[in-house]
Amino acid sequence: MRRAKIPRTTASRLPIYLRTLSDLANKEVEIISSYDLAELVGGNPARLRKDLSYLGELGTRGVGYNISHLIYRINKSLGLTKRWSVAIVGMGRVGTALVHYPGFKISSFEIAALFDRNPRKVGKELGGLTIHHINDLTKEFSKVGGIDIGIITTPPSAAQEVADKLIEAGVKALMNFAPARIDVPSHVLKRQTDVLLDLQILSFYLAAKAKKAS
Amino acid sequence: MRRAKIPRTTASRLPIYLRTLSDLANKEVEIISSYDLAELVGGNPARLRKDLSYLGELGTRGVGYNISHLIYRINKSLGLTKRWSVAIVGMGRVGTALVHYPGFKISSFEIAALFDRNPRKVGKELGGLTIHHINDLTKEFSKVGGIDIGIITTPPSAAQEVADKLIEAGVKALMNFAPARIDVPSHVLKRQTDVLLDLQILSFYLAAKAKKAS
Repeated sequence: MRRAKIPRTTASRLPIYLRTLSDLANKEVEIISSYDLAELVGGNPARLRKDLSYLGELGTRGVGYNISHLIYRINKSLGLTKRWSVAIVGMGRVGTALVHYPGFKISSFEIAALFDRNPRKVGKELGGLTIHHINDLTKEFSKVGGIDIGIITTPPSAAQEVADKLIEAGVKALMNFAPARIDVPSHVLKRQTDVLLDLQILSFYLAAKAKKAS
Repeated sequence: MRRAKIPRTTASRLPIYLRTLSDLANKEVEIISSYDLAELVGGNPARLRKDLSYLGELGTRGVGYNISHLIYRINKSLGLTKRWSVAIVGMGRVGTALVHYPGFKISSFEIAALFDRNPRKVGKELGGLTIHHINDLTKEFSKVGGIDIGIITTPPSAAQEVADKLIEAGVKALMNFAPARIDVPSHVLKRQTDVLLDLQILSFYLAAKAKKAS
């Protein structure tokens, strides 16, 4: 049976389900109802069941979902049964925080190469990796067998140039932490991360609540 | 005329429109069509027009949107014409990066208080603010006239405890950078930020493309 294509909105919720399910598995919970899982992730049970229905037939009515099986299916849908290699460009505070982020060690993402253009940083070691010069992207990528995802943690003024270099060196996806818009060709995926965007969404709800209360 | 309630999905896109519009305003562009704006933000024109229709009557058919007026209306909808005060708890790499993030200076969010529990950090200055002990949250909040939003940048094991303290001290919204689930009462807003969630969404699209290509 051919499975229906997973919608973007569902895809964006799967990582959240995955995290909650992993927490439960760590606590040795084996089965969970859609009602309880929806409550834990802060959604509604109908939407959750609909989302999970895209992964195939999983739940048993009146019993619930087998957690380890569900984790496996979500991992597979998200492409997390494969390992993705990641390069980080920009070894300032954000780049350094990412290298030390403990979540990477148990994830499907392997930080395989680090870059900067500051001569005082190039050659130094960080998290077991040597920081290379940004001009050596292509050379270093081939040494580690290619890079799937490039993470940009440079100042905003350098973001587009670094994006271009990463794409030229063969990355298929970019994650941009620099507070600047980057343009990429249509075959490259990108995601923009910005604390201000998140704060602005919070602001929207805070303002709406303040209006209601007044 | 009473305006229709803005849907959550629209609210989450408004900050993205806002950023692109601000870039255009900085380049002294005055008018933009829904078609061109949709292209810049990577969406489709019909959805963009629908989203902006919630802000009132804005565009002129055949002419486009007045950019500065649109910025004003989005700012108002997002509650960004008010200033929100922010406290950051956890002065490790991520917390420090946020304090130094230049975007805050031109935003509606003002970092008003910093906290840690490490005695070697308490009392130090960072970005013009003194780092206070986490046990002094309530005292410091009242000194600065209250805090709207708490940002948690502690290790995961401390996240829930810090969330509880921030809520007790009166914050109405939390942004959690710690890779841990936090529970909050229903009157408190929360947003979870996690680089792994973003990478997992990228992974989903990379895996989907790889399947198509094979």
